[in-house]
Amino acid sequence: MDKQRTAVYPGTFDPITNGHLDILRRACDLFDGVTVCIARNPSKEPMFRIDDRFAMISEALDEVGLDGRVQVETFDGLIVDYADSLGAIALIRGLRAVSDFEFEFQMALMNRHLNSRLHTVYLMPKDEHTYLSSSIVKNVARHGGDIRPFVPSGVARRLMAAYGHTLGE
Amino acid sequence: MDKQRTAVYPGTFDPITNGHLDILRRACDLFDGVTVCIARNPSKEPMFRIDDRFAMISEALDEVGLDGRVQVETFDGLIVDYADSLGAIALIRGLRAVSDFEFEFQMALMNRHLNSRLHTVYLMPKDEHTYLSSSIVKNVARHGGDIRPFVPSGVARRLMAAYGHTLGE
Amino acid sequence: MDKQRTAVYPGTFDPITNGHLDILRRACDLFDGVTVCIARNPSKEPMFRIDDRFAMISEALDEVGLDGRVQVETFDGLIVDYADSLGAIALIRGLRAVSDFEFEFQMALMNRHLNSRLHTVYLMPKDEHTYLSSSIVKNVARHGGDIRPFVPSGVARRLMAAYGHTLGE
Amino acid sequence: MDKQRTAVYPGTFDPITNGHLDILRRACDLFDGVTVCIARNPSKEPMFRIDDRFAMISEALDEVGLDGRVQVETFDGLIVDYADSLGAIALIRGLRAVSDFEFEFQMALMNRHLNSRLHTVYLMPKDEHTYLSSSIVKNVARHGGDIRPFVPSGVARRLMAAYGHTLGE
Amino acid sequence: MDKQRTAVYPGTFDPITNGHLDILRRACDLFDGVTVCIARNPSKEPMFRIDDRFAMISEALDEVGLDGRVQVETFDGLIVDYADSLGAIALIRGLRAVSDFEFEFQMALMNRHLNSRLHTVYLMPKDEHTYLSSSIVKNVARHGGDIRPFVPSGVARRLMAAYGHTLGE
Amino acid sequence: MDKQRTAVYPGTFDPITNGHLDILRRACDLFDGVTVCIARNPSKEPMFRIDDRFAMISEALDEVGLDGRVQVETFDGLIVDYADSLGAIALIRGLRAVSDFEFEFQMALMNRHLNSRLHTVYLMPKDEHTYLSSSIVKNVARHGGDIRPFVPSGVARRLMAAYGHTLGE
Repeated sequence: MDKQRTAVYPGTFDPITNGHLDILRRACDLFDGVTVCIARNPSKEPMFRIDDRFAMISEALDEVGLDGRVQVETFDGLIVDYADSLGAIALIRGLRAVSDFEFEFQMALMNRHLNSRLHTVYLMPKDEHTYLSSSIVKNVARHGGDIRPFVPSGVARRLMAAYGHTLGE
Repeated sequence: MDKQRTAVYPGTFDPITNGHLDILRRACDLFDGVTVCIARNPSKEPMFRIDDRFAMISEALDEVGLDGRVQVETFDGLIVDYADSLGAIALIRGLRAVSDFEFEFQMALMNRHLNSRLHTVYLMPKDEHTYLSSSIVKNVARHGGDIRPFVPSGVARRLMAAYGHTLGE
Repeated sequence: MDKQRTAVYPGTFDPITNGHLDILRRACDLFDGVTVCIARNPSKEPMFRIDDRFAMISEALDEVGLDGRVQVETFDGLIVDYADSLGAIALIRGLRAVSDFEFEFQMALMNRHLNSRLHTVYLMPKDEHTYLSSSIVKNVARHGGDIRPFVPSGVARRLMAAYGHTLGE
Repeated sequence: MDKQRTAVYPGTFDPITNGHLDILRRACDLFDGVTVCIARNPSKEPMFRIDDRFAMISEALDEVGLDGRVQVETFDGLIVDYADSLGAIALIRGLRAVSDFEFEFQMALMNRHLNSRLHTVYLMPKDEHTYLSSSIVKNVARHGGDIRPFVPSGVARRLMAAYGHTLGE
Repeated sequence: MDKQRTAVYPGTFDPITNGHLDILRRACDLFDGVTVCIARNPSKEPMFRIDDRFAMISEALDEVGLDGRVQVETFDGLIVDYADSLGAIALIRGLRAVSDFEFEFQMALMNRHLNSRLHTVYLMPKDEHTYLSSSIVKNVARHGGDIRPFVPSGVARRLMAAYGHTLGE
Repeated sequence: MDKQRTAVYPGTFDPITNGHLDILRRACDLFDGVTVCIARNPSKEPMFRIDDRFAMISEALDEVGLDGRVQVETFDGLIVDYADSLGAIALIRGLRAVSDFEFEFQMALMNRHLNSRLHTVYLMPKDEHTYLSSSIVKNVARHGGDIRPFVPSGVARRLMAAYGHTLGE
């Protein structure tokens, strides 16, 4: 009888990082339900296949104890349409740097033109995650750096394997 | 039995603009309750006294039909402590320009250090409000410009009166 | 006997948007003549061929009644040299976001080194066009969103066709 | 019979710098006439009185040979109204840094709401003037630094005198 | 016989924060000597008198074990002249946010015009100090917040005393 | 017996510009030794092969008289590890625009996580180099513009040759 307020958290998650998990944890405090929506065909070719990205998210949610509170789905097309089909009232975005901010602004205004019932809600990651991104993590992994402080353990293992490194012992 | 999720929307509101009202309307969609928290003693001397700022907000909420859903309070001290005393889980901020963004970031990180249970939630005003602020409205009013498209009618009347102008007929 | 002051408005126009048309309308108020200069070989591979980009611009100018006042040309090489060959004194640029601003600044300083007689003139689009770009429009069209509010009707038709969508009826 | 296209260049000019003169020179290439409009009562208390600011501009225009092509006026109220009374079609602004850009954007959008016939036109100063401002020049002069490379000679003399320094010989 | 390379670290230090100390520690790794230069008469009226700012810095250097490696001085006039009188080759600046960056850029270019032998060197504070500033710390202290994680213990004590608060027990 | 303080200056140098040389000259004033570290396999495919990039740097150092003071090396993997293997205490970066700043910030924080003994040191190029980059130079050269004011003579020759232009006589 009370209206359920739910949110979507869209992205490529190529792969999921601790910064994404931090945002998810906050979103769970604010909404009755949160759905991670993985873009099946992002404009830039992803490193990991859709089922690998899905698996890494599921494992990570399980690892941090968010598995009962967060759904994971994949989608194609416009996120505003997909959010609508789920009955979500909010679209969650993490906000990090100034250039992020501008791109986010542009997307938010366009999304509002496309669906005025869906509110874009920006959350801020922990300061130690402010400058963390999937790209920089892949870049460090590619050069053999230790990326375990930045991603869930399953992601670290797959990234190292993908680049032919073994986890330091 | 269902947890009530409430938010605070702090500011100086010197005076409230249509941009603030737009953010408030969105916040009402997202939370079970929203409290506008007017800073009694902001670091910069306000143009309007605290009771005038309070009255203009109350009139405006009534004018746009948000009066039953939004509380108005004044506060001194740290907003994180005041929010805590109200049991709020979120602090609402409107986000407009890059320079806003940096200041907001700094405040959000500091507020999180002070109270980690309170999430800062950024909402984006309508594009026509993106570059609207209390300062620019006062500046236009001071020079006799027509500020009625930017503020509630009661605010327009008081601003014009304060600067010795009469509303164009 | 009066000096004619003319301007060039260079770009890829892949495709032209309502934001471009808005800038063009303003440029026509400021100069005796304006030439849209389409880059034949931009560094990023365009979606539309040069003759399609040319046709969409011509149709759009006709549609908004600017066809008698704006020339359309294509060019290769440095825009400063092409502008010089046309006798233009100004290079028109639309200015939207902070990241635009920086790139524009870099180009303006370089163009000035290359031809100090040509002034770069920045105009600002209407606020509802501030966050509009060819890229975001293509992205929305690709996912089947309605892009008719953002582009001339001929562009909307071609974009939908290119992505295999039909205009909603 | 040909329409005269004129522009205003508003500011506090407290005092005029070589950066302002550089912008003026460019504006003279683009328009049939340019009027420097000095704000009599800017929101921040100026260092120089209005007649001193006027005199320094007149001397500087004479010094650089722009005196026949540029008018100087003072104004109160909204610049858009004053520009209208002069029949100007453009409002000239110099653009230097990102923070400038945001403030300018906000002003441009507000000015357009107030008078849609007046176009804001941004010009870019020479790169060596990019980070020059009246404030930084006053700050250097206050501490006894040599400000002659940054301002017209009459301004340098008055600034040094105001701060009790004598020009190095 | 080996050239001593020394640096100055100028500022208002009103008061010194853990962010300043972090920058100082890094500067000590890079140079043979570092001198903290406190501006006696900054353009904005400081909260603490010059001797209090000096004392808080000295105590803090002692507390973190940098007292043997860092000099503290006060200065008036241009920092480039004072640095020259000390034989310094570098001017140290901490860099935090985009708005900082622009102001710093402007100062660095002006300082280079004034003294081309002095290099401005930017260092980045720890991520947890990225958004820390003397102003925000004073603001929190004024409202009775706990500022002990952000400043040396002597500074915390004086700030709390100045605002009439006692340290929580 | 005095500790040698050395720095690395990493990059793709595709190709080296006068802006890079300006930064190098400043770094030589600040450190006992500087090593240019060319990334063998940057994430974006470079225009020039690694041995050509190496040769252009060596020629340029010779041309400006820095050849005795600067080493040139190539590296793969993480720059923090390579810097460590050379015993460097600092990583030199040139800082130009706001978008640079953000990327640099992200890299600096990540590099600090990876190796806390290496300090990232930002230097600012001459104002005329502020908006100079390898990309913009290649872009101008590609369109037949004169790039000789922006790069060492050997680089200009190779760039023109690569794009099938001959140096103007």
